[in-house]
Amino acid sequence: MNCILVLGGARSGKSRHAESLVTAEPGPWRYVATGRAWDDEMRLRIDAHRSQRGTGWNTVEAPVDLVSPLQCPEPVLIDCTTLWLTNLILNEDDVASATDRLLEALFRRSALTVLVGNEVGSGIVPENALARRFRDEAGLLHQKLARHARRVLFVVAGYALDMK
Amino acid sequence: MNCILVLGGARSGKSRHAESLVTAEPGPWRYVATGRAWDDEMRLRIDAHRSQRGTGWNTVEAPVDLVSPLQCPEPVLIDCTTLWLTNLILNEDDVASATDRLLEALFRRSALTVLVGNEVGSGIVPENALARRFRDEAGLLHQKLARHARRVLFVVAGYALDMK
Amino acid sequence: MNCILVLGGARSGKSRHAESLVTAEPGPWRYVATGRAWDDEMRLRIDAHRSQRGTGWNTVEAPVDLVSPLQCPEPVLIDCTTLWLTNLILNEDDVASATDRLLEALFRRSALTVLVGNEVGSGIVPENALARRFRDEAGLLHQKLARHARRVLFVVAGYALDMK
Repeated sequence: MNCILVLGGARSGKSRHAESLVTAEPGPWRYVATGRAWDDEMRLRIDAHRSQRGTGWNTVEAPVDLVSPLQCPEPVLIDCTTLWLTNLILNEDDVASATDRLLEALFRRSALTVLVGNEVGSGIVPENALARRFRDEAGLLHQKLARHARRVLFVVAGYALDMK
Repeated sequence: MNCILVLGGARSGKSRHAESLVTAEPGPWRYVATGRAWDDEMRLRIDAHRSQRGTGWNTVEAPVDLVSPLQCPEPVLIDCTTLWLTNLILNEDDVASATDRLLEALFRRSALTVLVGNEVGSGIVPENALARRFRDEAGLLHQKLARHARRVLFVVAGYALDMK
Repeated sequence: MNCILVLGGARSGKSRHAESLVTAEPGPWRYVATGRAWDDEMRLRIDAHRSQRGTGWNTVEAPVDLVSPLQCPEPVLIDCTTLWLTNLILNEDDVASATDRLLEALFRRSALTVLVGNEVGSGIVPENALARRFRDEAGLLHQKLARHARRVLFVVAGYALDMK
């Protein structure tokens, strides 16, 4: 599977690192934004990410369905798996089958796909049951993606370690 | 000390990785479960872990006393240090002397012992004082174990980095 | 820039590791403490750190202004960037310009400076807006420092990985 998984904490520089992996391929490139601008804070965050990227990117908003945006010959950046998972859970979608469909779509592609995900499991156990479930699902999702990815990177302060 | 410490976030794949280190030794193997099934969520989690392991494992439940279950010639997996620490704190046991007893028991063994622990100190400082104390104690415990372990691994999405 | 950034979770052993990097240089050494002893818990933590350090250290308390304490020929340890950031935010100071002043002061030094910072972005997204802002600012600060540092280390259980 021509896929790289880039994991890291919040504001670790993982998106920027992932972008550099995609733009190392010939453009144009497709940026798949999974975040939903449901409030001003989120809108500001999305706009800031968008303005940081240069030209050559086509942005597709895909909060839930990742299969259609992957049907293209261009290198794709999916940013990020954890917001996608949030949307699935809020929609009460079946996470396991959505993950299977994502993996199938990734296997069908020949161009590079880079997936960005937040590490969310290295703090104290959350008191909130939904947060615990989210933390578990995120960890399992990243393990599944990592198993099939050809590279797995862990980013700290803008620098990446090769895990796989 | 013939001991490997495997650290990682929640659902990072650290238990599975630790199991593979133990089963690389000739069996049978002893699985020391420190988790207490105090509610349905915990019972489900324990059962899921148990069913993932294959045959050849003898499971011992040891929420507080880790010295007795280590008195055996088999390779042992202790899963996990952070649930053990939780139990010590809830019991109002002395953590420092329990840790010393654990280290002595580990030094007396010749077979491999693999210890799994949760990284819990990489989130925001918790508002709850008990959570802050737990976070501090977990960090200190892992530093003490790491100092004497012959290997220390950090697991992200199922892949392990050698720290020591 | 003759600067090393040491990142890690709470109680990961990052301060002790950073101290060993400083004391590998000829002394005396300057310890710049950014923590404010605003309650007993914090006072105990500061005293414990101070008593762990040996002789040869001159301690300077610098909760907000890091420029003056860096105007010296000695190797300096700044412990830590995340408490400094907390103080800036509580003071309603401009974080971006304070960071620029810090970077300028670091560039003017020829002796080694080691900066310790807490990784705070690898847990669940905090519900509290101020905590989210702090988490974002900490990540951005560490990325900026890392870009100019000659080494970036990530510490887990007392052992350090070279990120850069």
